[in-house]
Amino acid sequence: MEIYDAIIIGAGPAGLTAALYLARKKANTLLITEDIGGQAALAGQVENYPSQKIISGHDLMAKIHEQVEVLKVSIIYEQIKSIQKSDNQFKVVTDAKDYSSHTVIISSGKMPKKLNVPGEGKLTGRGVTYCVTCDAPNFKNVPVAVIGGGNSAMDSVLQLSKYTNQLYLVDINNEFIADAIMQEKVENLGFVKILHNKKIIAINGDQVVSAIEIEDIKTKQKEEIKVDGVFVTIGYQPSTDFEMPVKLNKKREIIIDKNCNTNIPGFFAAGDVTDLQAKQMVVAAGEGAKAALAAFNYLTKNK
Amino acid sequence: MEIYDAIIIGAGPAGLTAALYLARKKANTLLITEDIGGQAALAGQVENYPSQKIISGHDLMAKIHEQVEVLKVSIIYEQIKSIQKSDNQFKVVTDAKDYSSHTVIISSGKMPKKLNVPGEGKLTGRGVTYCVTCDAPNFKNVPVAVIGGGNSAMDSVLQLSKYTNQLYLVDINNEFIADAIMQEKVENLGFVKILHNKKIIAINGDQVVSAIEIEDIKTKQKEEIKVDGVFVTIGYQPSTDFEMPVKLNKKREIIIDKNCNTNIPGFFAAGDVTDLQAKQMVVAAGEGAKAALAAFNYLTKNK
Repeated sequence: MEIYDAIIIGAGPAGLTAALYLARKKANTLLITEDIGGQAALAGQVENYPSQKIISGHDLMAKIHEQVEVLKVSIIYEQIKSIQKSDNQFKVVTDAKDYSSHTVIISSGKMPKKLNVPGEGKLTGRGVTYCVTCDAPNFKNVPVAVIGGGNSAMDSVLQLSKYTNQLYLVDINNEFIADAIMQEKVENLGFVKILHNKKIIAINGDQVVSAIEIEDIKTKQKEEIKVDGVFVTIGYQPSTDFEMPVKLNKKREIIIDKNCNTNIPGFFAAGDVTDLQAKQMVVAAGEGAKAALAAFNYLTKNK
Repeated sequence: MEIYDAIIIGAGPAGLTAALYLARKKANTLLITEDIGGQAALAGQVENYPSQKIISGHDLMAKIHEQVEVLKVSIIYEQIKSIQKSDNQFKVVTDAKDYSSHTVIISSGKMPKKLNVPGEGKLTGRGVTYCVTCDAPNFKNVPVAVIGGGNSAMDSVLQLSKYTNQLYLVDINNEFIADAIMQEKVENLGFVKILHNKKIIAINGDQVVSAIEIEDIKTKQKEEIKVDGVFVTIGYQPSTDFEMPVKLNKKREIIIDKNCNTNIPGFFAAGDVTDLQAKQMVVAAGEGAKAALAAFNYLTKNK
């Protein structure tokens, strides 16, 4: 059986950049993924990726994919089932086959938690978004709803408040779970309409978002609120649903050090699947480069 | 005196990306630098920055600079003398003025290392250079030596090959540490005289460079090679020549954690000035984003 130098899992900014770097080092690399671009490819207008003034997530990822393709990296579209360590190698088991490798880089990313309500899927990228840093500047002086009650919901409101003062903050709980200081900042804005105990039951809109439908979880009273944007900030979950020997934190993110090492030698991780705070495309790309160089360094010493 | 939310030191990929992120968060940001682009702007052909297939370092940095300029970040061109912490603020002292800030991000990058051999200082700018992009065109059809064995040595040879085919590549190691793909490009030129295991012991010349003296590190045999130019590409040292309260490692790099925190709260660092292993443009850009988000998070909680 062929033993790869490196198997990369996932083809978002981290995985593709890792592939770019390893291919340029002529390491025998296999990229296993379910799609190209991951979450990044779903971003609407990206304005914070250095060197690309305005680009869609899709086009950005297509550009990086093209760079990787030129280098003839093997990409296969399979789903990971497990990764096992045996001696100084790793066995990667997919829904189709087993593969062996000297090193593994996990860059499988994360998935935003969805509301799972009618209209959400259809209107994603059309007013429904899961990334305030990406999309806040697109909602100047229009009504917007932020869904959630944690720090990232508060953060979303604070970021949006630079662009619009027509802001709803819709929380399913009786009290926010965010840090008090974050809550205070939101309250100090003075213009945020805060709604507690409200469940989102639908997002309405034909081509783009026009309203949210909410229901009071106590009184069961329903209400429609007209908004142009819906920021869903109810958390993320890392894509770590497969068996692997590596240490995770309690959010099930892979714990790394600053050079993308995990607790297992030869096993690296990069991007949103890790316990880094910043979940951003350029950060993931940078981490992918780091993980590739760390893996190459490991290969040089151990292979 | 105005107190900034953040002062960023240096405008390479890390500093510019930090500025981009903080400006998008509407943080009151000052960028203090001596130039735009830093060492990155001097790179020849960049092929490993994700989303830019082939671009000069200069053009890549110009693109990122443009993104920052649109956001109207204040950029001043001064030299840092010291950074002091007092209470919960930082005082940044330049050759011209003092500035105050709630947070500081150091992204001052790195400078090329010198050989520290006789003749080098005297002949710098007179045949000895550290910047192939700046100086390659000055060496048309004359013999030139490139010193080093990493990617930037290969890049230097490739750039020089457009101007002269009388090229020596002098490496102190038994094997190059450059990417295989870069080594191949150099080998494919067919005319580069590659010398391994050779130490430079002197650079000779009266008004301008006339020769290098090398010594074989095994046989101790010495040799003089007549050249008009010497391109020194043996690595870099961090630009941390100013007083600051932060912890450095023995290479004088700023010690960070994976989220760009230093040992001082409110004091962040990003890019080539830090103790990260990977010194790469996309890594620095990612780190700049991380540091900006960490600084913004700190401001949200502490300002």
